[in-house]
Amino acid sequence: MRTIKILQIGMGPLGIKIAKMIDERSGVETVAAVDINPDLNGKDLALLCGKEASGVAISNDLAKEVARSKPDIVVLTTVSDMRRIVSQIETILDLGLPVVSTCEELSYPWEEAPEAANKIDALAKAQGVAVLATGVNPGFLMDAFPIFLTAVCQHVEHVRINRYQDAQFRRIPFQKKIGAGLTLEQFEEKKRAGTLRHVGLTESMQMIAKRMGWQLTKTEDIIAPIIAQDIIETEAMTIAAGKATGVEQIGRGYVGDEVKIELHFRAAVGEPESFDEIKISGTPDLHSRIQGGVNGDIATGAIIINSIPRVLEASPGLKTMMEIYPVSFFS
Amino acid sequence: MRTIKILQIGMGPLGIKIAKMIDERSGVETVAAVDINPDLNGKDLALLCGKEASGVAISNDLAKEVARSKPDIVVLTTVSDMRRIVSQIETILDLGLPVVSTCEELSYPWEEAPEAANKIDALAKAQGVAVLATGVNPGFLMDAFPIFLTAVCQHVEHVRINRYQDAQFRRIPFQKKIGAGLTLEQFEEKKRAGTLRHVGLTESMQMIAKRMGWQLTKTEDIIAPIIAQDIIETEAMTIAAGKATGVEQIGRGYVGDEVKIELHFRAAVGEPESFDEIKISGTPDLHSRIQGGVNGDIATGAIIINSIPRVLEASPGLKTMMEIYPVSFFS
Repeated sequence: MRTIKILQIGMGPLGIKIAKMIDERSGVETVAAVDINPDLNGKDLALLCGKEASGVAISNDLAKEVARSKPDIVVLTTVSDMRRIVSQIETILDLGLPVVSTCEELSYPWEEAPEAANKIDALAKAQGVAVLATGVNPGFLMDAFPIFLTAVCQHVEHVRINRYQDAQFRRIPFQKKIGAGLTLEQFEEKKRAGTLRHVGLTESMQMIAKRMGWQLTKTEDIIAPIIAQDIIETEAMTIAAGKATGVEQIGRGYVGDEVKIELHFRAAVGEPESFDEIKISGTPDLHSRIQGGVNGDIATGAIIINSIPRVLEASPGLKTMMEIYPVSFFS
Repeated sequence: MRTIKILQIGMGPLGIKIAKMIDERSGVETVAAVDINPDLNGKDLALLCGKEASGVAISNDLAKEVARSKPDIVVLTTVSDMRRIVSQIETILDLGLPVVSTCEELSYPWEEAPEAANKIDALAKAQGVAVLATGVNPGFLMDAFPIFLTAVCQHVEHVRINRYQDAQFRRIPFQKKIGAGLTLEQFEEKKRAGTLRHVGLTESMQMIAKRMGWQLTKTEDIIAPIIAQDIIETEAMTIAAGKATGVEQIGRGYVGDEVKIELHFRAAVGEPESFDEIKISGTPDLHSRIQGGVNGDIATGAIIINSIPRVLEASPGLKTMMEIYPVSFFS
């Protein structure tokens, strides 16, 4: 297999992490890296990855980098929302390149942002390339993977998915991101500011609903703090009783008065167990559990890389994980 | 969605089970049923399914039934081996129809029977239709599902899959099929006759290996009895100590001296637990378990039905579960 040439856009922490993971893999290579941040401009990508200089310098000139490096595909790790991603995708499609993105809202935008989705779809088709957004969640653990499990079901009545994570031994930025150590007032403030929110629960629910043949009449996405009952100590912080240890976010998808889909995302310091769980009520009932859970930092990079061959072979248009062949590790 | 019209070929117990399941589902309908068994000829399908007469009579004339019922697709539940399936598929393809089959060896024939696979692939392409063989195993639990789980892996070193089933409360034919109650001599005899064997371990291993990028240099498929330590009583039989309670079948896929894939299929009366388990050694390690296991009787029929929309939209040729969009329940 010929090495797939990747141009990365968005060289923040996630972009750098993916660059490292691409570097470790055979069959894929980052041939160019683009970011609008002037502080990154001209920096050698390999040095940022903790390696020796590679000659790939981060640039702010996408068109020039495309012309120079002739990439097969763009890996886009910039924003989480549809509003801002559309023009970015447009620019890339104008250059005739397929895209794999981590943009959460783009993973299944057909219900929440149908106009933007249709626009990207039409542009991709006009250019003859495919666009996909994926990740560990949304993109896999709370949508594509449970949907695939229903392949053995004669009937599905209700889907519940639990992603519970003990953040005790996770990165400090992750602990902060989930609100560990905040007072309940601070937690509410961050919640109002939108910086605590896991993006994608609604997209995951809509992807599930579409495949199960359910038209959701209402969705909920509720965020609440998990509160320390006793003092909790981590390497990075001491959390007093009554403060937040993390976050619980619950998504519910209704058909009329009936809850058909329930997604529970829970991440907290001191959570007793980490696991990813699927409970399908149907014929048969299915109860699947990944003990220890799936490490989101590795998994997001991995699924982006693993999706690349499937996106390159896909028919043109805006795809979801259900409209490309099943993604898997490759070597 | 327009109702999909299905012609079923092979109206043995599995064909009848699937006919019942199709009858329960919306969006699909069995419009014709064909079997070479003269005892079934002219019998009303619905009566065999325990329902009121439907007017669909089992016929032995495929061409006539195709002309009469104008099906969209054939569900083929006849044989497990490539040797006998080829001419059956050929006959169906000559009539221009796509196929979903339970034929275990057809689920991934590219390594074990490449000539026959190529022949079917060429015929399907010439007719502009797709052919797929699937089932709960091979087709899902020991191949497609674990392969999909590797989507979140940056590296995969080794795959082990355990399908353990307590047969205590399963159908009596299933208990007999796995050798429960046999003396060890009788077990050996049935094993030599080939009637104890679960077909498909090698196909599952080859499907996994292909996706992981491993070229297997050797495969093993070993069958051994599980032996009663004490007397075991079921509704149907009493098993004395020293007799077989069931079967363990182990598949191993090697690259050189290294075992890369291990599949353990274990079904016995008195097995302490039923579960389906995936253990991936890699980055990250993953340990997934479906507690209680997946009921094979329901699951096989369900996955056949659930595959139909994906096969109808597939590009022409002989497909595997990795070359159609992810299968899921639909309604």
